[in-house]
This record gives sequence, C-alpha cells and structure tokens, in this order.
Amino acid sequence: MTSWVRDPAFARDQPFGPQTLPYGVVDAGDGPRVAVRLGDHALPLRSIAHDLGDLADLVSGSSLDPLLAATRVEWSALRARLVSLVTESSTPSGAELLPLSDVRAVLPFTVGDYVDFYCSRYHAENVGRIMRPDTEPLLPNWTHLPVGYHGRSGTVVVSGTPVERPHGQRRGPEFGPTGRLDVEAEVGFVCGGPVSRRVPTGQAAEHIFGVVLVNDWSARDIQGWEYQPLGPFLGKSFATSISAWVTPLDALAMARVKVPDIGHPRLPYLVEDSPWGLDLRLAIEWNGSVVSRPMFADMSYSCAQQLAHMTVNGATVRPGDLFASGTVSGPSKEQRGCFLELSWGGREPITVGDTERTFLEDGDTVVITATAPGEDGSVVGISPVEGTILPAVDL
Amino acid sequence: MTSWVRDPAFARDQPFGPQTLPYGVVDAGDGPRVAVRLGDHALPLRSIAHDLGDLADLVSGSSLDPLLAATRVEWSALRARLVSLVTESSTPSGAELLPLSDVRAVLPFTVGDYVDFYCSRYHAENVGRIMRPDTEPLLPNWTHLPVGYHGRSGTVVVSGTPVERPHGQRRGPEFGPTGRLDVEAEVGFVCGGPVSRRVPTGQAAEHIFGVVLVNDWSARDIQGWEYQPLGPFLGKSFATSISAWVTPLDALAMARVKVPDIGHPRLPYLVEDSPWGLDLRLAIEWNGSVVSRPMFADMSYSCAQQLAHMTVNGATVRPGDLFASGTVSGPSKEQRGCFLELSWGGREPITVGDTERTFLEDGDTVVITATAPGEDGSVVGISPVEGTILPAVDL
Repeated sequence: MTSWVRDPAFARDQPFGPQTLPYGVVDAGDGPRVAVRLGDHALPLRSIAHDLGDLADLVSGSSLDPLLAATRVEWSALRARLVSLVTESSTPSGAELLPLSDVRAVLPFTVGDYVDFYCSRYHAENVGRIMRPDTEPLLPNWTHLPVGYHGRSGTVVVSGTPVERPHGQRRGPEFGPTGRLDVEAEVGFVCGGPVSRRVPTGQAAEHIFGVVLVNDWSARDIQGWEYQPLGPFLGKSFATSISAWVTPLDALAMARVKVPDIGHPRLPYLVEDSPWGLDLRLAIEWNGSVVSRPMFADMSYSCAQQLAHMTVNGATVRPGDLFASGTVSGPSKEQRGCFLELSWGGREPITVGDTERTFLEDGDTVVITATAPGEDGSVVGISPVEGTILPAVDL
Repeated sequence: MTSWVRDPAFARDQPFGPQTLPYGVVDAGDGPRVAVRLGDHALPLRSIAHDLGDLADLVSGSSLDPLLAATRVEWSALRARLVSLVTESSTPSGAELLPLSDVRAVLPFTVGDYVDFYCSRYHAENVGRIMRPDTEPLLPNWTHLPVGYHGRSGTVVVSGTPVERPHGQRRGPEFGPTGRLDVEAEVGFVCGGPVSRRVPTGQAAEHIFGVVLVNDWSARDIQGWEYQPLGPFLGKSFATSISAWVTPLDALAMARVKVPDIGHPRLPYLVEDSPWGLDLRLAIEWNGSVVSRPMFADMSYSCAQQLAHMTVNGATVRPGDLFASGTVSGPSKEQRGCFLELSWGGREPITVGDTERTFLEDGDTVVITATAPGEDGSVVGISPVEGTILPAVDL
C-alpha cells in the first residue's frame, strides 16, 4: 500500500518517514500553525482537524503548548491516529501538504525553565584537562550526580536563526566581541504533562514529551572570565538553538539502551528499572564538513536520571521546560562535541574542508544532525539544528 | 483634605501611604484581580476601570503581565492617575476596598527568566572567607563585573507560601533533608517594556518596572556539594520567595544614591550618568526577632549596571524577567544578609529571641522588610517577603 503522501523522503528507510512524525510549528505566510513533518513536507494539523476528534484541540493552535500540557495517554493516542492517517492510501479531506522550502519554522513551544547538564564523562574530563591541567580532571561530585545549571530560556531560538557574535568581558579585563566562539552539540528533552514535583525515574515517560537537538553556543573567553564561583552566564546566554521539530519519545522506543556504569552503585533515587539511555548518533557539520560524530549512548546519566535529580528537591517541572544533556563527547578525538575539545583549547587547529580552524569565524555555519535506530531496521531522524554566525554589531 | 480611603495605615508617615502605591494581584474568592495596595487594604483596579480610561485595559485582568508589557510612559500615567484618585475626598464610583486580611495575594506576574546576582562586596568577601579560608576572599573578576547566574523561574513563589525543607545530595555523598537551610535577603527588579537587547544604563528606566524583596532560600550543604564547576542548582531551585506587591520605580525617586566606588574606573558599558543605587533599609526578622539590618546602598553594582551587563552580549530582556541583587550584607555583623554569614558557617550560633540558632529549623518563620526615603520626609515601604519552613516530606 502506498501512502497518499507523495514524497520520496517520506519512506521507512528515510529519517523522516512514517516511523518518526515529529511535531513543529510552521508559517506559510498566514500565521504559525502546528504541523507534523512528513519527509520534506509539513502537514498543518488544523487542516485535518476533523479526522482527529477530541485531540484536534491540542494541535489546532499556533504552538505546541496545549499538546505539551496534555498527558502521555493523549500523546500516544494522537501519534497512533497520525500514523494511521499518513499511511493510508487516500488523502484525508482538506489535508494541506506544504513543502518545507515554502514555510518558515518558528520556535515550536514556550520555553519554561531551561536547564543544561554536563553528563558526558569524556567532555567533563577533556574540559578539566584543558582548563585545570594540574588537578584531577573530574571533580568529586561528578560520578554521584548529574551536574547542571539553569540557562536563559528567553534566548532559546529555533534552528536557522542566525547567531550574532556576542560582546563581553574577558580576562584583563578587556571588552569586545568574543574571539573564542564555540558550539556544544547536545540533546534536549522537552517536558510536558501535569506540573509535578519529585518525578522518579519510573515516571519519566509521563513528563518527557520528546527530543530535540541543541546547540549551546558558547563564548569561551567570556565564560572563562565570568564563571567563578557561580557558573556560566553571559558566555552562554546570547543564544541557544534547538531543532524546529520535536521527535516524540514514542518514536525512540527501539533506541533505548542502558547508560554506562559509573564505577559504583547509583544513589537509590537515580536507579532506573528500565533503560533510559538513547542510542542517538550525532554528527557535527562545520561549513559542510563533518568534523565529529559523537554517540549519545556514551552519556553517563540518562534523561530520566536528570529529571529525577532536577526535581528531587521539590522543584516543579512544567510543560515547556527544556533540559539538555550537556555536550556529547566520546572517547576518541573524532567524537568530541565542541571545538574547545576538538582544537584542545585552541592549541591544535583542525581541518575544516580546505581550511584550518580553532573557533568559529563570521559566516561559518554549523549543522548538528542525529539519527536513531527505529522499528524493522528503519532510521528515526532527530531534526537538525543549524546556525550561521553573523559579525558582532558595532557598539 | 482627607482621602476617601479611611485606613490609618494609608498615610504619608506610613510605609504604604499614597507615596507608595504598589501593584499586586489578590483573590477575594472570586478569582485573581490586579490591585493597588492602600495601607492595609487592596483596591482592585477593575472596580475603578471607568476612571482609568485607556489605561484600564492594562490592569483589568488577573496578572500584572499586560502592565509590564506596556511602557514607562503608560506606567507613569497610570501612577499619576491613581495618586489623584486615591487622594480625593470622594469615593470613586464602584471602588471596592478590601481588607488585606480578607484576600489572598497571588504571584503577581509570570516570571520570565530569573537571574540572581552577587553584588554585595561584604557578602562575597564573607562567603569567600568562610568557604575558601586559604585564598583571597574576592575572586579576580568580582570588581570588574556583576557576577550572576540564572535561577529557576518556575519555583518563584509569592510571599506567604510555605517552604518545604528540601532533600538532596550532600558531601559523602549522603542523601536526605538539608541540615543547613538558609535565607538570602535580596532586592529584586521586575522588568517590563518592549523586548530589547543591549540596554545601556541610561535606558534602565524603560525596562525596570519596579522592586520587590526576594528571599533566595538556600540549602548550603546541597549547594556546597553540587556547585563546582557550574554554580548553584538544586541548593537554590526548590523555592525563591518574592513580595506580593511590586513597588513602582517612580515611588523610589528620592531613594536614588550613587553606588560605592569599586577601587578603579568602571568599564564604559557599566558607567552611569545618573545614580542608580537605592537607599533601601532592610530588616530580617527570624521568628519575630530582628537579627540583621542590611543597607542596600552598600551594594557595589546598581540595577542599571546589572541590566546593562545582563544584556550586553545581545541577550534579550522581556517583560516579566526578574533579577535579584544577591544577598545584601554590610560591613558590620548586624548587617549580614544570610545565616551562613551571621553564624560564620554555622560555627557561631546567634541569639534568636530566647534561643540559639545557626540554620533554619522546621516551623521557623522569616520575614524580610524594607523601607526607603520618600518625598517630603515620607517613608516608602517595599512589601515584605515572608515564609515558614515545613518539615521535609517522607520519600
């Protein structure tokens, strides 16, 4: 049986086939509408509202906020209905199929709190070696808890948004545009469900709606001067880019893996009774050249452990909260998730196409992509996150 | 001429007389309504909408959000109109005056990003001496920039909300309820106006709507274990309390003072052409005993400098963003703004009424109050922030 969706990219052997079905918000010139991505097309869900029954109200507006405020039961019911509708042979009446090239994707939900973790042992060790060469690379708390901090939710932007080179203070102190502009390739988790406190690892599925890629742009010279003793601030807060499309957790059932051992038993509130690691294979393209292929399965703490930790003190989690994994790095050089690591603090330039680079130059474009194993040998895509560096403005 | 508001607390020699007029949101059982505080009464502004003309739309709803999204011109016009209405001798038709004891105050606005600074030299030096006794108390960046970090906006709560003792990891690692629960007496700034980037000090009045008191509750044992290298996280994120009423910046015109010299010239983007320090006199009451009287005029960076710094990298400021000063401490022991300092790391118990204390015990209540000089010798009150500690829940 052939689907009514005539798009070669909408196939089981393609990352955005019917096994994926990520949600986003697109504007074709008539205002933002919630949509599902089918290959290289967007299907605005308002156009098939009559086929969605009671669930239509969750996806008929201009953002994913009502859908995120619903529950796992509704998320799974909607997905099942969509899987059925997009694989039928006859076109649902009214269905509008818009080429992605004809629409503008907008930030798909209102970001509540944004938390950024630091859960790759390889990244933490590399940064420790680069920044504090005379001490143990891993601090004593790292193997006991997922280290994290709050970032700026107001500057989370959708993939494709240009990133202006930020000004700031650096050692000296001097003031001016950053000279060490970097990326961090991360995986982000979009929260939903009822406002809750103390979410145990076994309840993660009720509160994690789906997955995006995150580029946590970082100005290393600003960060290095400001971060003691209270952590990163302006070196990160100028922009954080996320995928335009949120891949639902349900699409990643085949990608679940155990997180690596951490060298000792986990504290009870961080124990998982089912595996919450994810086998996502990332790639970082710098001006079209792949410079790294980090593996998310190398991360030492899962999203369920991060959420349990983040709420164990009684802090609430709300629909729209976003938390990211921290830079995804692996054991080999070709798996490092930021340029600070790839260029070893700027001391070892790397080859990017025909050029040598350490940090980002104006006009550079970085795209982070990822795929995961899907059912029956299919591949599930995580929508890419892309950004191009604009020159600093004159102040 | 006598005002129609018959409340002895609504007088020029009282903190919430007609010179103050803070805004909040109250619920008398029929849903939340924007109100202005008159002495010990709340005047819901919807009840006098017909006297407010076009401005009524800004204050006829259930939160301050529309007012914050307006502009300085509208804020000043509304205040001028209210000053006139509440000092007339005849009651505006329809005006409802509700005793504060008959209403419940709710969180008055939707908090966007919450940033917490660290701008008291005395606090930073004391904490440095307590936590890192073998090093210089002040880190090298401190005199050059207002050190700050992002906190959790989703757990900002209104004054009066009980605070449950949080669980968390501490050194060991051990897991359990915090044994070192502390307060931090701070002043918070509520942002408004158009979404903007790079707000120079000279534009602060367009983006700072008003002032609240903040109690940045802190679990020192959780914080001490988790905070390296990325700063405070769960040791702070369980609750942050703010005043129920926001005192408009216009009420504090007589309280403006220069910030203290910092020992060298400020970088150009932190220079002020008019003074933005504030002569606010705080008091911390622990179970009814005043244990400290910090002076906000001792802070080394002003709100205008904090806002300029926070946005100089291109980060946006939005209506509803909240930033706090950091713990307000002064040079003498009686001016220390947290119990970590007052008890010198828990080693020197302090007298609280008939008892000796270091950190908070279950059932303790802390109230932070503040006043500022107003016009013609009057006193402007900043609405107090209060909280009582509930025992940790059983996990």
